[in-house]
Amino acid sequence: MLVNGKAGNLISIRDRGLLYGDGVFRTLRVEQGRPLHWPLHYQKIQHDCNALGIECPDYARLSDELGGLLADYPDGVFKLIVTRGQATRGYAPASDAAATHIWDVAPLPDYPESRALLGVTLRLCELRLAHQPRLAGIKHLNRLENVLAAAECAGADEGLLLDADENVIEGTRSNVFLVLGGRLATPDLARCGVAGVARDRVMAYAGKIGMAVEVRAVKLDELRAADEVFLSNSVFGLWPVSRFGQRQWTDFDYALRIRAGLAGETNG
Amino acid sequence: MLVNGKAGNLISIRDRGLLYGDGVFRTLRVEQGRPLHWPLHYQKIQHDCNALGIECPDYARLSDELGGLLADYPDGVFKLIVTRGQATRGYAPASDAAATHIWDVAPLPDYPESRALLGVTLRLCELRLAHQPRLAGIKHLNRLENVLAAAECAGADEGLLLDADENVIEGTRSNVFLVLGGRLATPDLARCGVAGVARDRVMAYAGKIGMAVEVRAVKLDELRAADEVFLSNSVFGLWPVSRFGQRQWTDFDYALRIRAGLAGETNG
Repeated sequence: MLVNGKAGNLISIRDRGLLYGDGVFRTLRVEQGRPLHWPLHYQKIQHDCNALGIECPDYARLSDELGGLLADYPDGVFKLIVTRGQATRGYAPASDAAATHIWDVAPLPDYPESRALLGVTLRLCELRLAHQPRLAGIKHLNRLENVLAAAECAGADEGLLLDADENVIEGTRSNVFLVLGGRLATPDLARCGVAGVARDRVMAYAGKIGMAVEVRAVKLDELRAADEVFLSNSVFGLWPVSRFGQRQWTDFDYALRIRAGLAGETNG
Repeated sequence: MLVNGKAGNLISIRDRGLLYGDGVFRTLRVEQGRPLHWPLHYQKIQHDCNALGIECPDYARLSDELGGLLADYPDGVFKLIVTRGQATRGYAPASDAAATHIWDVAPLPDYPESRALLGVTLRLCELRLAHQPRLAGIKHLNRLENVLAAAECAGADEGLLLDADENVIEGTRSNVFLVLGGRLATPDLARCGVAGVARDRVMAYAGKIGMAVEVRAVKLDELRAADEVFLSNSVFGLWPVSRFGQRQWTDFDYALRIRAGLAGETNG
């Protein structure tokens, strides 16, 4: 584990990441010494830092640090956190704040392979995501909604989150796609939700195989009526949904084709 | 500074307070070795912990720790943070998570006395608070809205926050009261905002002097038309507002009377 490039697993109690959740993060999968799609993760974290006015450490520096960790951890889930750094006083950011950046590594999860092949159960969360356009799409450290939603839906493989207008938005830790007559639809994240790297990759791959993708409002009835539903996430890749309430799916042709396509892509 | 009762100013990078903002806090004023209204602050932090399912350290333990700090820091702003503790994996809280609690101390701010006597400038923030009834009222660690709002309104003494329906809610670090024909009105915080200890004290004191208090939706036009407007906060107490855009106030009779009344109350 590294804190500002040095071995360590502690940060100051005055770090704004703790005090206010004033920071961003991304999680990537590392397999056999290869960090999967690291450049895409960097682009996202850089985008999110810019959106919040946090200075993002540069790509070369983070890549160096990541490279150093790979020797000790050739397989794992790597988390990169960037916070606005130590607090001076109060909510307003200081103009000279030096960001804190943290690398942490956890073991790869041992999800049963059946989740990818036979699908997962999805349960509707009661919590509704709030609309905050200033934070939408950003993977920031204010994640209490996800915590409460995950607690509620702990019995299912994943919880499904709607917003305050009953639009489908995302899973508690994944993005959601619908297959509708050979086209893809995925929720618009302009007012809430996290735009994952895996979501971008699904959309890019769909484009490559000539499959139209609509980013727009999605309602629950439409999800229930979809030919297929699947979830994307940088750690588990792609999981088809086999059950949502009374609705069951057994045909995952598109989901499995896209999953295989993504797995076969060049790492970058 | 204390972390789980021991001297220190570091926490784990795996603490859920950092990872998800999964915790709560309160800030109290300490003067001449007396922590002001500590029992009320404890009640609030206990309420907030319960609302999020975090185990709150007990009153006796926290009081002991606080007492120990007073010898070294007889005057200061004391912050108490309680997080859900260290993460195991993912958003869902572990059933056996042991909370982390942290005491930090900062010097008393040197606000000019004129703010309390002659009033402060209030500026409207562009950011609108999102509606999240599950988190409303709680002083949790997901404070990015406050960070962005405070950055925006840095030129004024305080920034005023509306919600997505254009209701007046609060200041970036204070609660808001209107005086209207000898009655008080303060925004309902059922959908967003933080319910401060000082807000409770203002309401209780108003009751004591026979002044009616309405907790309800408040619109900006009503604020502009109010006889007086004032802000409450446990560190600065009560500040009358002297200017909001084109609107100016010079008569602070109610605000100053309530301020004096609160200052004269028994500590407890």
